[in-house]
Amino acid sequence: MALIVQKYGGSSVADADCMRRVAARVADAYRQGNDVVVVLSAQGDTTDDLIAKAHELNPNPSPRELDMLLANGEQISTSLFAMTMETMGLPAISLTGWQIGLLTNTNYGSARIKKFIGNRVKMELDRKNIVVVAGFQGMNRYDDVTTLGRGGSDTTAVAVAAILHADVCQIFTDVDGIYTADPRLVKGAHKLDEITYDEMLELASLGARVLHNRSVEMAKRYHVPLTVLSSFSQTPGTQVKEVFKVEQMNVSGVAKDDDVARIALVGLPDAPGIAFALFSLMARKNVNVDIILQSIGRGGTKDISFTVSKDHLELARRTLEDSRERLGFEDLIISDTISKISIVGAGMVNNPGVAAQMFEALASANINIQMISTSEIKVSVLVDSMDAKRAVQAIHDKFFN
Amino acid sequence: MALIVQKYGGSSVADADCMRRVAARVADAYRQGNDVVVVLSAQGDTTDDLIAKAHELNPNPSPRELDMLLANGEQISTSLFAMTMETMGLPAISLTGWQIGLLTNTNYGSARIKKFIGNRVKMELDRKNIVVVAGFQGMNRYDDVTTLGRGGSDTTAVAVAAILHADVCQIFTDVDGIYTADPRLVKGAHKLDEITYDEMLELASLGARVLHNRSVEMAKRYHVPLTVLSSFSQTPGTQVKEVFKVEQMNVSGVAKDDDVARIALVGLPDAPGIAFALFSLMARKNVNVDIILQSIGRGGTKDISFTVSKDHLELARRTLEDSRERLGFEDLIISDTISKISIVGAGMVNNPGVAAQMFEALASANINIQMISTSEIKVSVLVDSMDAKRAVQAIHDKFFN
Repeated sequence: MALIVQKYGGSSVADADCMRRVAARVADAYRQGNDVVVVLSAQGDTTDDLIAKAHELNPNPSPRELDMLLANGEQISTSLFAMTMETMGLPAISLTGWQIGLLTNTNYGSARIKKFIGNRVKMELDRKNIVVVAGFQGMNRYDDVTTLGRGGSDTTAVAVAAILHADVCQIFTDVDGIYTADPRLVKGAHKLDEITYDEMLELASLGARVLHNRSVEMAKRYHVPLTVLSSFSQTPGTQVKEVFKVEQMNVSGVAKDDDVARIALVGLPDAPGIAFALFSLMARKNVNVDIILQSIGRGGTKDISFTVSKDHLELARRTLEDSRERLGFEDLIISDTISKISIVGAGMVNNPGVAAQMFEALASANINIQMISTSEIKVSVLVDSMDAKRAVQAIHDKFFN
Repeated sequence: MALIVQKYGGSSVADADCMRRVAARVADAYRQGNDVVVVLSAQGDTTDDLIAKAHELNPNPSPRELDMLLANGEQISTSLFAMTMETMGLPAISLTGWQIGLLTNTNYGSARIKKFIGNRVKMELDRKNIVVVAGFQGMNRYDDVTTLGRGGSDTTAVAVAAILHADVCQIFTDVDGIYTADPRLVKGAHKLDEITYDEMLELASLGARVLHNRSVEMAKRYHVPLTVLSSFSQTPGTQVKEVFKVEQMNVSGVAKDDDVARIALVGLPDAPGIAFALFSLMARKNVNVDIILQSIGRGGTKDISFTVSKDHLELARRTLEDSRERLGFEDLIISDTISKISIVGAGMVNNPGVAAQMFEALASANINIQMISTSEIKVSVLVDSMDAKRAVQAIHDKFFN
């Protein structure tokens, strides 16, 4: 008997048939004697439909009201799901974000969890209920509804698993695990049986869409054993956990991220405090900055380039233009036809040759590298979007074939 | 400057155009310097759509989960409405039942208000926000979502008006006031400028669909000045308030209610405690009993007849059959092809001739009376449904032409 948290995404509960299929799976886990918490996203296109309804009335609604609206998506899917479990003679209860005591900050649209009071969930499990939790949503200090933003439902699932000390947090998706590269994109990509939190973290932040890095970060911090598996098959999936794989040349995967735009500020004064002024400004506007490159100062000026996600590009550009005088740059150059290609692997830090092999693969394929960024367990490069697919294949061939 | 509560029903906010029309009306009230609280129902067919979704998965969902599902209807309409107000440059904030602290008992589907903590609404008004409240819903002592059942949004509006000591609670509907009879049914029916709480109460409980008696009862208890008016026109509507109209022969209106079924228990033992046993049983099952008639005991037995709404008929029948032995009746006779016709008027108690005039009208029209019930301000009769429309016209002609 174990305590299992299962998370199903929107496509897994899109319609009545999907609901019943997921319900059968949950029923199996429950009938085997496990305590089961199910975390659900909104059904299929519900969120998009609600956004469309909002935009019909207001193209730019306040984030507070938008969250209030969007939270209905999960409240609807969870109550419908609980009713579905009832038809199987099983006790189920749906709970919203505020009911489970998931307390967040006030950053509507992408709220962060501040505190989690899990008493209600524990009580319902003690009563032998299957607890159906609305993912993606919480409540802030004003008792207002917030949503967690991208990867929100995964994050809810991991938070629930953490507070309950769950034996496993199963993330059901439309793929059957984590692959060495996107199998739709790369020939020879294969599924991993296991991967470390850190590797997953890098893959997630680098464009592997299976798990969002927020949820993996939280899983790592609270030692939540994660499994990624398919809601459409019974294959075992990929386990994400703390594993030591020393002295091997471990490249776990190759990832591609097209949601990247590059901003270059040219001719900044070569003075102390400029980078701080620039990036604290971005932080205040909630623009997430990824790769940062700074040129060596020359002739009293320097250049700083950095990448942001495409949906933050316009906000970043506008913010910078408004502060042109204060920051003192000469020119602002934007490129949004770039992709980020990364390799990830825990053993990489001890194998300096890995990056070189990656660059060799790109050179052989005659692909120009625009920017390079490395960490302990990853190497990322920016290339022209036109070359991205070929780049992934070339690198994957190098390491896995 | 006044504090105004406005309630709009589902048809008034059915689509984007309706939303904008209502928003313009609310904006007028706000721009005139008033504090405004808007109470909304779910849009158009939303509630029916949600129920259909539920029934696709479970023909008999638990009331708890059904309430959880249905509450989304108002949460959606209020957040969309607040966004609409935003486009007019006006500050608006949507609040759910749990956010305004509307605490109810645990009777899912038709919960009663137990306590109302109005702090949040007051605070938002102090901040000069237009407060958009989700009608029809509350929260019980388990922090679970409840719905108030029939007339729920009107009841929310009156409760909000009561706790805020509002200057007026305006109920916007698709008719422009209270009529002496249903104008679609009766020739010569005309609109009343004012009516007393008690008269309205009788009319509401007697099938005049404009206001539910729960909301009128609450308005009377807390002295909330109610106005019923049309959301589609600018006519002044009907004021519901405490008025003395002495010594006039005041028949305010004629009402017809087709949602009536009659249950007759024949051959009950003529012993003390039988009525108590019977009606406490109905109360425990939440069956609302309306007219009760008991025959004079003869030969050791008596008969008791009573009416219930049609949707309670089956539950009442089953409950009685299950208790046949304990109650000791010989036969149970059901009729659901009856209608209740009533006249209402504050001065009636001092004019014994009024009931006689009503019976005379029915006799002239050759309509048989099946049951009679009177109160201080009303006389009701049961007639065959086939005769109902003619009965209303005949009575209306008698008193108003």
